[in-house]
Amino acid sequence: MSTHAIAILGASGYTGAELVRLIATHPTMRVAALTADRRAGEEMAAVFPHLRHLDLPTLTRIEDVDFGAVDLAFCALPHATTQEVISKLPRDLKVVDLSADFRLEDPEVYAKWYGHEHLALDLQPEAVYGLTEFYRERIRATRLCAGTGCNAATGMYGVLPLLEAGVIDPDNIIIDLATGVSGAGRSPKEGMLHSEVSEGFHAYNIAKHRHTAEFDQEFSKAAGRPVKCSFTPHLLPQNRGILATIHVKGEAAAIHSALAARYAEEPFIHVLPLGEAPATRHVRGSNLCHVGVVADRIEGHVLVFSTLDNLVKGASGQAMQNANLMLGIDETSGLTMAPLFP
Amino acid sequence: MSTHAIAILGASGYTGAELVRLIATHPTMRVAALTADRRAGEEMAAVFPHLRHLDLPTLTRIEDVDFGAVDLAFCALPHATTQEVISKLPRDLKVVDLSADFRLEDPEVYAKWYGHEHLALDLQPEAVYGLTEFYRERIRATRLCAGTGCNAATGMYGVLPLLEAGVIDPDNIIIDLATGVSGAGRSPKEGMLHSEVSEGFHAYNIAKHRHTAEFDQEFSKAAGRPVKCSFTPHLLPQNRGILATIHVKGEAAAIHSALAARYAEEPFIHVLPLGEAPATRHVRGSNLCHVGVVADRIEGHVLVFSTLDNLVKGASGQAMQNANLMLGIDETSGLTMAPLFP
Amino acid sequence: MSTHAIAILGASGYTGAELVRLIATHPTMRVAALTADRRAGEEMAAVFPHLRHLDLPTLTRIEDVDFGAVDLAFCALPHATTQEVISKLPRDLKVVDLSADFRLEDPEVYAKWYGHEHLALDLQPEAVYGLTEFYRERIRATRLCAGTGCNAATGMYGVLPLLEAGVIDPDNIIIDLATGVSGAGRSPKEGMLHSEVSEGFHAYNIAKHRHTAEFDQEFSKAAGRPVKCSFTPHLLPQNRGILATIHVKGEAAAIHSALAARYAEEPFIHVLPLGEAPATRHVRGSNLCHVGVVADRIEGHVLVFSTLDNLVKGASGQAMQNANLMLGIDETSGLTMAPLFP
Amino acid sequence: MSTHAIAILGASGYTGAELVRLIATHPTMRVAALTADRRAGEEMAAVFPHLRHLDLPTLTRIEDVDFGAVDLAFCALPHATTQEVISKLPRDLKVVDLSADFRLEDPEVYAKWYGHEHLALDLQPEAVYGLTEFYRERIRATRLCAGTGCNAATGMYGVLPLLEAGVIDPDNIIIDLATGVSGAGRSPKEGMLHSEVSEGFHAYNIAKHRHTAEFDQEFSKAAGRPVKCSFTPHLLPQNRGILATIHVKGEAAAIHSALAARYAEEPFIHVLPLGEAPATRHVRGSNLCHVGVVADRIEGHVLVFSTLDNLVKGASGQAMQNANLMLGIDETSGLTMAPLFP
Repeated sequence: MSTHAIAILGASGYTGAELVRLIATHPTMRVAALTADRRAGEEMAAVFPHLRHLDLPTLTRIEDVDFGAVDLAFCALPHATTQEVISKLPRDLKVVDLSADFRLEDPEVYAKWYGHEHLALDLQPEAVYGLTEFYRERIRATRLCAGTGCNAATGMYGVLPLLEAGVIDPDNIIIDLATGVSGAGRSPKEGMLHSEVSEGFHAYNIAKHRHTAEFDQEFSKAAGRPVKCSFTPHLLPQNRGILATIHVKGEAAAIHSALAARYAEEPFIHVLPLGEAPATRHVRGSNLCHVGVVADRIEGHVLVFSTLDNLVKGASGQAMQNANLMLGIDETSGLTMAPLFP
Repeated sequence: MSTHAIAILGASGYTGAELVRLIATHPTMRVAALTADRRAGEEMAAVFPHLRHLDLPTLTRIEDVDFGAVDLAFCALPHATTQEVISKLPRDLKVVDLSADFRLEDPEVYAKWYGHEHLALDLQPEAVYGLTEFYRERIRATRLCAGTGCNAATGMYGVLPLLEAGVIDPDNIIIDLATGVSGAGRSPKEGMLHSEVSEGFHAYNIAKHRHTAEFDQEFSKAAGRPVKCSFTPHLLPQNRGILATIHVKGEAAAIHSALAARYAEEPFIHVLPLGEAPATRHVRGSNLCHVGVVADRIEGHVLVFSTLDNLVKGASGQAMQNANLMLGIDETSGLTMAPLFP
Repeated sequence: MSTHAIAILGASGYTGAELVRLIATHPTMRVAALTADRRAGEEMAAVFPHLRHLDLPTLTRIEDVDFGAVDLAFCALPHATTQEVISKLPRDLKVVDLSADFRLEDPEVYAKWYGHEHLALDLQPEAVYGLTEFYRERIRATRLCAGTGCNAATGMYGVLPLLEAGVIDPDNIIIDLATGVSGAGRSPKEGMLHSEVSEGFHAYNIAKHRHTAEFDQEFSKAAGRPVKCSFTPHLLPQNRGILATIHVKGEAAAIHSALAARYAEEPFIHVLPLGEAPATRHVRGSNLCHVGVVADRIEGHVLVFSTLDNLVKGASGQAMQNANLMLGIDETSGLTMAPLFP
Repeated sequence: MSTHAIAILGASGYTGAELVRLIATHPTMRVAALTADRRAGEEMAAVFPHLRHLDLPTLTRIEDVDFGAVDLAFCALPHATTQEVISKLPRDLKVVDLSADFRLEDPEVYAKWYGHEHLALDLQPEAVYGLTEFYRERIRATRLCAGTGCNAATGMYGVLPLLEAGVIDPDNIIIDLATGVSGAGRSPKEGMLHSEVSEGFHAYNIAKHRHTAEFDQEFSKAAGRPVKCSFTPHLLPQNRGILATIHVKGEAAAIHSALAARYAEEPFIHVLPLGEAPATRHVRGSNLCHVGVVADRIEGHVLVFSTLDNLVKGASGQAMQNANLMLGIDETSGLTMAPLFP
């Protein structure tokens, strides 16, 4: 079996480490390069002791990577930095980006939500939005895939098929979402300390979370007209997992049928029986997304729930799935592990 | 200063223990009797080691309590049992009940939500609903106060003033609520094990949680016409704290003003500046409720947040506040402790 | 590639579910039967929703399993029950037991620690203690393998090579150990509720934990004379992971060398550089064990740390490793996943 | 009742906030000044939203405090900074320091453990070590009290009476200790992020934790000759609470008697019945310390357990208790709250 040489740019963050975890059991990928500018020269075991049993290359700077020997690069760098880095990579290198830098098709929308001009306008047109189940064929053909926001993906899995099928009112979509703390990354911040996060729950970035721009873009495309939802994220006292509680107007059975039909052949999206709701803990560590539908007691009001692991299906697992497509191999390669519970 | 002899019926549960905690620093109350039928004869320190430093009576059976020497009884027993127990207490004994047994004014509504006939119909008319800030004068005068549901109280603090003031659409109220696990009590259940609860989040009792009946009763009274909200509770991987994320239709400034005006003189309800959202961790262990208002990006859509500690303001603290009123003493007695953070 | 038909007896507990998780990515094993007497007739997805994406047989009763079509059975039942169940299985069926029932070679020792006579005395002699790295050849040849205690395994990985090499004083071994709560199983118990376990730490079963008997048996064998250690387990507010902090008398460099030499070829036991200490979070979900050695400031006093995931290397992963040996396949099959962090 | 004007220097850290919490229910203290150099000009509610209901002065810089109007200052600043700050305060101002700066009597020992010369040598002689139960009369008379290390206090409560009574071997003291994360403070550090701390346990600062110097100083004084213990701290995935598991050589009944006798009249130190072990969760949020004694199965080997809340009895509660003594009021003022459980 041939192997694929993989570079991970930004290997000192959680999504970088998660990619290494997934590659460890991937049938064809091997880690060819790991970069982390501030920690170049160190072993990965010093940065992530849970990976010490693996035979991995020493961390290097991006400019020291021989991209000629790389089949595909995962880019797990902060936003803005990413646009500059990817601009300098060979133009024929397959790249799966995990940042926000190429998600938004309209540079003006990008500038509005991210507060600065897009720094790689020439590359944006070739980027394909990485929500695999909705862009599979385009991802298979692209050389630059833009990973989705983890919150955005969670909400979209519950809503997009409903807009496509026309079974809900596009003007009445409310997404209350709760996310684990690992999505905030590994950079030290007061608000992410254990003392500040554990034993507590609150909403944040209300009415202004950047993933809202992805909802607008994709919901509008699916509905064929502008759609603007309400989106309120909350921070959970747990590390992994996102649950979206989505309020829509429609008929529960039709909504459930639309979801079940849309995902019938999907390996990673599972629609629970009508009336059942999913839990973040039951997808932890896996590339799975569980979707559930429950009728509210108010006529015509339906609850759709969607859950996934923000570091896997919401980031590194999605990236791996897309990379598999771009490399022409089985889409589920390296992603068949079951969730870790408890 | 005179003292008040207090009996706690059902002292082996979390709300019973919490009452003992509050009485420990109360200026006039002293624990005269603690009952726990299955653990009668044991010391409280064996049941709750965190109370071992207190000088407390041995646990007894209810029938062994000399109610003639008791000024007020807190009843922290399971629902249904409570109706039978309170029926047998002296009819002039002041009682603050923490169960669901006397919250619903209409026995048919009770029967519908709790699945059996009301067992103390003669007592129901004298029961006053224990949401202090809305029934203060009636509580002061009653001898039987019915504590509210902890989730119900959280939602009501955010919504009732808005219905009273007529600043929201009564037909568009959505309450997504997340609660800590201590509200489920101390009886062993698989779903409440640490392994099952930690590192996970899910919705439960969707469209059928019993506290919904309290919302219907109180919201309809406040609005002067029937009101039916959507209510979806979720279980948090933490012990204490409830946060209600409430979606309403109205104007943010008017909503904020209505709340600020309604609670201006209240010692325990604090309305945050417009645009700020509260966190459960900032009321932990206290009798406080924090309420916040944030405008959504969708015109006319407003988010109201309400948070309290389910075991204090949602149960034992509320009960203490009501008992203070019924005993004719300062309402804040024993309740001025600041939250415990972190 | 040939497949191996596997039965899991006691599939409704955590170790049973963990075996299913491991088999999901095992190259040759497939689940042929899952038993759970009280839940026979239910689907595994109803008992463990995190496994709903797998194609698994319906839960049955043990007597309904066709053991003629089974290559190996994992037995994940409670102790005592296990002795009775295994007695009734075909005598040529390969069995990997996860209970305590066949760990102790001396029936009198068993009776002393477990409080009743051994119920399968005829089977005890063929049972091999499942500490793979110390009994590999005997496990390869046996048809009945007795899984070790999870705490016992953790301590032994740190101590056994030191007794074998004679580099520590056998009369001065102190093991302070802390374990996650999943080791207590899924049966509801007050002490294992989230409210009771989270945000707290305490020692339990002091001077009387049953795994002590395994230490006595194996330490004495390794030292060639009776050895009696001090062993104090503590309960951690986390689900997975055991850390043993072991105090020994000897010389740090010699101790480190003995461990490094002993485990040099082992795929799952990793000895950290001298002076480094391991963390439970860095082995979570994997079959790895990390061992570290640090000199105390007191001359001749050395700390040895050992950590593993109680449900994997301490239970189901160990069982899988032993099953691989008994089936004559690569010992690491199905066990190469990296830890899940964070 | 007269009131005492209190200044808190360093009010933006956890111990500063905890002092405000305690003063909120203190009968005579009122907060006269709160300093936090980097956040001067902000309201305390912006820094600690859980204190927003209190009427508190705006945060200021230290040089803006009118110390002439202050009866006592709590100093909750980082070490080293503290020596410089206290040097500049009025020499007759009562000061209770919570840092490490004045704990060690011997400046050379200080320099060795803290890596720099002592910066306030003239003040060191007047500082009294703040372990209240052992220095009560000297604290009552001093104007500068040096708070103990939180880990040090926990260990000392279990060991000091045994050395005083001569019932253990001073050359065989092993302290394995586990502490909650709030002890590490509020400054953002990668290792204290929720993602890094939760669901994990490890030892840190092995053989080199600075509190060791306090053990050496106090144990040697109590024994009347040099004593050097083994001390290994571990980090718990919880916010509050320290448990010391202490191995000593002696006779369990004599050890228990020595502790029970020593603490018989102490309001905050409670010795459990012989054979019982304490838990951190049962002292959370209180000024209590629970001590337990259990005989090991090895003859002459005894386990002593000691637990307290690092932010209360280990820091701010201890400071309050000492301040009460220095102000000549009831030592338990403001400290009678019961623990918060669950």
